[in-house]
Amino acid sequence: MKAIWLDDQPRLRSDLPMPAPAAGEALVKVRLAGVCSTDLALLDGYYPFTGVLGHEFVGEITGAPTAPERVGERVVGSINISCGHCRECLACRPNHCLNREVLGIKHHDGAFAEYLCLPLDNLHRVPDGVPDPAAVFAEPLAAALEIPELVPIKPSDRVLLVGAGRLGQLIARVLALTGAELDVVARHAHQRQRLQGIGARCIEEQEVADGHYDLVVEASGAPGGFALARQALRPRGTLCLKSTYRGEVPVALSTLVVDEIRIIGSRCGPFPAALRLLEQQRVDPTPLVDCVEPLANGVVALRRAAEQSVLKALIDCS
Amino acid sequence: MKAIWLDDQPRLRSDLPMPAPAAGEALVKVRLAGVCSTDLALLDGYYPFTGVLGHEFVGEITGAPTAPERVGERVVGSINISCGHCRECLACRPNHCLNREVLGIKHHDGAFAEYLCLPLDNLHRVPDGVPDPAAVFAEPLAAALEIPELVPIKPSDRVLLVGAGRLGQLIARVLALTGAELDVVARHAHQRQRLQGIGARCIEEQEVADGHYDLVVEASGAPGGFALARQALRPRGTLCLKSTYRGEVPVALSTLVVDEIRIIGSRCGPFPAALRLLEQQRVDPTPLVDCVEPLANGVVALRRAAEQSVLKALIDCS
Repeated sequence: MKAIWLDDQPRLRSDLPMPAPAAGEALVKVRLAGVCSTDLALLDGYYPFTGVLGHEFVGEITGAPTAPERVGERVVGSINISCGHCRECLACRPNHCLNREVLGIKHHDGAFAEYLCLPLDNLHRVPDGVPDPAAVFAEPLAAALEIPELVPIKPSDRVLLVGAGRLGQLIARVLALTGAELDVVARHAHQRQRLQGIGARCIEEQEVADGHYDLVVEASGAPGGFALARQALRPRGTLCLKSTYRGEVPVALSTLVVDEIRIIGSRCGPFPAALRLLEQQRVDPTPLVDCVEPLANGVVALRRAAEQSVLKALIDCS
Repeated sequence: MKAIWLDDQPRLRSDLPMPAPAAGEALVKVRLAGVCSTDLALLDGYYPFTGVLGHEFVGEITGAPTAPERVGERVVGSINISCGHCRECLACRPNHCLNREVLGIKHHDGAFAEYLCLPLDNLHRVPDGVPDPAAVFAEPLAAALEIPELVPIKPSDRVLLVGAGRLGQLIARVLALTGAELDVVARHAHQRQRLQGIGARCIEEQEVADGHYDLVVEASGAPGGFALARQALRPRGTLCLKSTYRGEVPVALSTLVVDEIRIIGSRCGPFPAALRLLEQQRVDPTPLVDCVEPLANGVVALRRAAEQSVLKALIDCS
């Protein structure tokens, strides 16, 4: 089958064998896949990975030896494949499984392919009313929803989002749902344009008031973004980290103590809530799509996604 | 009056005027004061301060123009003097007052003196059953109690405390109250000896199991302590920072995101709970006292407190 394979460089391969579902797994025919900043980070060597890239997708179950009744289901998929037996799995934190594989990120071939395999338990049925170009956002939307899962957000809260890239855009929409007063630091005009009408105020970095916000979400992934977020926080405020950073960042830990700051790291989130919000059209991610390329041009999609003016690049794998 | 004055160096002065209580303040005759690591950090230039050192004390109200009925009360005192009008005061976070003075730390003369002034609202009556050498620990015990104020701790939790110095000893006693499984990294024999019988297990640094603990409290103030604490935490665990650090510490922020870690900075805590626990003798800090010097030898007490083998040095100001 065809897939985008990462070795030193990403490239199209047509010689890959069809993946074979293990016990409890399903074979999924990928319809549409999304390029995420993590994919670009993998290209840059953020984490050593060799295999098929991609972890955001919508597809159709075409084989499920142990659950034939699910064949034909249109699905999205949770990306963490857990062992079920380790300390973290037994403590009901399967996303933190010590032996986990991660779709297209760690030890498990991903979604920029004609087919992929995932455990049946990872696959969530997509409601009929959610079209593929919306469903493909289920994974990053779930990640955005993990913020209000972890941090109670009140309508009277002042919330700042630093960064309005592809994940930031979804986070902005999720934060706006809470009714909180939301400011977004969006550097680029195309980012600001996509935030119009969602209930957020776009501001420049220099407009961020020190010590003003109850909650700051850092989604820029830049050390400068972290410093800005920290500075914007009131005493006893919460800083939610929502992006990955290269290497180590110098942090003035004493000020966290003096100002009694909370920092919360957050990764993956709840798929059922994401699918419900997409079905209710309370979050519409489709205006974020800037580019759709066929799988044969998957490498082009990766290149386009790295352009500053492109928010979401999709790969049509059908 | 006599007091220990910090300029470039700490020294005994006998030429200081009696402090005069402002409206709403009381004059307190200091009986006993405690040396804290923050005092030693001030000597080292952690924060620029010129004035009378000291913020842990027990004393007696000898003057209170607006509340003469309180004269004669034996009291301990909360160290933050707030303005009552700024954004943080109006948001019910007076300890974070933007214009705050801090007893013996910032813009307000402290407790290594014959007399000090504090607002009446800061002064808490000491129950009769609590002797001075226990009451003098009310301030740091309150700070230790802020940990379970901020972090729910379950009896089934695995808790690690890194550092068993003067504050760490109190934190260990507070954490033990929760019934959680408590390990304490205590480097020195005299620290381990003082932890006997409180319900904690003393371990060496190299015995700390990676990813094992639900909650880790960092009370060593060393960058190495921070790294050890971070490493010891399970995914989704909480790291409570309870000490100040010099400068910036490099932090791998990405691992906080991947492991969904919470970091909580914590400073001052609830005095009434501290006094109640002292009265009930559920926390007995008096075995931590290694040295008592008269005020005239206050500089000696500071020097003794800096010795590795000394946990608590007290200054008798009576």
